[in-house]
Amino acid sequence: MLPVVVVHGGAGSVPKERSAGARQGVCAAARAGYVVLQGGGSSMDAVVEAVTQLENNSMFNAGCGSVLNIKGEVEMDALVMDGQTLASGAVVAVRNIANPIQLSRLVMEKTSHVCLATQGANQFAESMCVPQVQPESLITDYARMRWRQNLVPDTTPVEQQVGKMGTVGAVAVDVHGNVACATSTGGIPNKMEGRVGDTPCIGCGGYADNSVGAVSTTGEGEAIMKVTLARLVLFYMERGQSAEAGSDAALAYMKSRVEGLGGVVTVDPRGHWAARFSTAQMSWAAVQEDTLHCGVEVGEHLTQNIN
Amino acid sequence: MLPVVVVHGGAGSVPKERSAGARQGVCAAARAGYVVLQGGGSSMDAVVEAVTQLENNSMFNAGCGSVLNIKGEVEMDALVMDGQTLASGAVVAVRNIANPIQLSRLVMEKTSHVCLATQGANQFAESMCVPQVQPESLITDYARMRWRQNLVPDTTPVEQQVGKMGTVGAVAVDVHGNVACATSTGGIPNKMEGRVGDTPCIGCGGYADNSVGAVSTTGEGEAIMKVTLARLVLFYMERGQSAEAGSDAALAYMKSRVEGLGGVVTVDPRGHWAARFSTAQMSWAAVQEDTLHCGVEVGEHLTQNIN
Repeated sequence: MLPVVVVHGGAGSVPKERSAGARQGVCAAARAGYVVLQGGGSSMDAVVEAVTQLENNSMFNAGCGSVLNIKGEVEMDALVMDGQTLASGAVVAVRNIANPIQLSRLVMEKTSHVCLATQGANQFAESMCVPQVQPESLITDYARMRWRQNLVPDTTPVEQQVGKMGTVGAVAVDVHGNVACATSTGGIPNKMEGRVGDTPCIGCGGYADNSVGAVSTTGEGEAIMKVTLARLVLFYMERGQSAEAGSDAALAYMKSRVEGLGGVVTVDPRGHWAARFSTAQMSWAAVQEDTLHCGVEVGEHLTQNIN
Repeated sequence: MLPVVVVHGGAGSVPKERSAGARQGVCAAARAGYVVLQGGGSSMDAVVEAVTQLENNSMFNAGCGSVLNIKGEVEMDALVMDGQTLASGAVVAVRNIANPIQLSRLVMEKTSHVCLATQGANQFAESMCVPQVQPESLITDYARMRWRQNLVPDTTPVEQQVGKMGTVGAVAVDVHGNVACATSTGGIPNKMEGRVGDTPCIGCGGYADNSVGAVSTTGEGEAIMKVTLARLVLFYMERGQSAEAGSDAALAYMKSRVEGLGGVVTVDPRGHWAARFSTAQMSWAAVQEDTLHCGVEVGEHLTQNIN
């Protein structure tokens, strides 16, 4: 069983006109991550590659395509975690960086810290020769349109909810049984400047531990934080639940305790995996043993041989 | 049993010449928190009052007395959490604010977000009419001396470790059985600009849930994050362990898994409490049923009737 990559392109309400693009995007990202594993790469290499692809895809709310804050600017959060050592790296409300997930990995590998915020993260990027990109290069017409709509005082909660979703993430198990997770987001639309959500917060946006598994989360960030969703899934698994049952139990708890909706992708160290959500939709894809799995709607699970 | 306040003034190595001052400080803060409970205040009121006192006491690494970052500046993190609703508020790397713990509470109560970073947190403070203080007003001679010492290339790890500690925090149970936690810190000395530690991260620097209890943590921040220490203590308690046993088990796990040292103050909803640490010292104090408890050294537990 073993090697597997599972990615998500965000839980929430995926508008019909964006469904096909989201599906294509998660499938391409999962395949790219799996190619890394096939080439002998680590689970960390694979999740960073998969999430980099999703950040570069303007269909998703991460990297290029991020939603805009109340001022019309992009501020992004990202997290990586290595299940072997529990080493972790994160950036908070960073600007002008094409791939926050790669910067998170540099925080993990090149500093004695776990998390850097705002300008501190940008200064570190500069010291690592990570190029700063033009702010406009991360902003799509779709993001700007939604920002304008949300400025209207009587914006309906539904549009807010649609706008909320699209955080991307990945989990993987490599041939050595090492697990890793990566999560990246532009946050929620029209957020206050400096708002930090669940994504960069260890145990909330993701968690990875070789002795249990790895999780990347998406959905209503503030609810995810209140229940430390990623860590909660793994606690259920430590108590003997499967990746799928643990994911469902944690999502059900979040719904009942704080009325929060979301989704997760989960693996255990042997390669069992799950992609589960309590929202209307979540784009997700997985590759294992030359089979590509994907879905967007509740209960949808398509498979395709990729050899 | 029920109402109780437990505070810590940081786990680590408390220099002898600062031991008496730290002891006095935590005792005064615990008493101040308990007065709030006796006056009918909530557990949230009590922990914010106790931590405010510790922030205002230049003996501790929070508010005035915070350690300095690599540039010689103060950047502070803080977190509050309400065990009844799991509502939470945090600020990250905020400057020029006398009481970050009060600003965290405002984030929780006055925004739809959980956490605000750097200038975003300062802009919010301004909108709430929270005064900005002069940067120098938060800097003590002791903090500046340590900052200079740490700039020397051959600084010993011991001095670094001494400098690391001093995060403050509190947990409480009120007459209604509601629990809350609050944690505040200047972080670690000579940190990179924008470094975010465990303190503002839900589940790491603190967690509160009426169905289990509340925890505030201190110690090696990056290690605390890797094991989500506060949430871990409560998971052990969910499995039937006492506040004391759960605290010890989580600290032992952190030591064995990531070689990290730290301390916690913990309560359960009935008012059982614990102050435990794996470092050389931790200043702590508790008040319950008119008795003040306190200690700094391993195994030290002094009591005093306060009526």
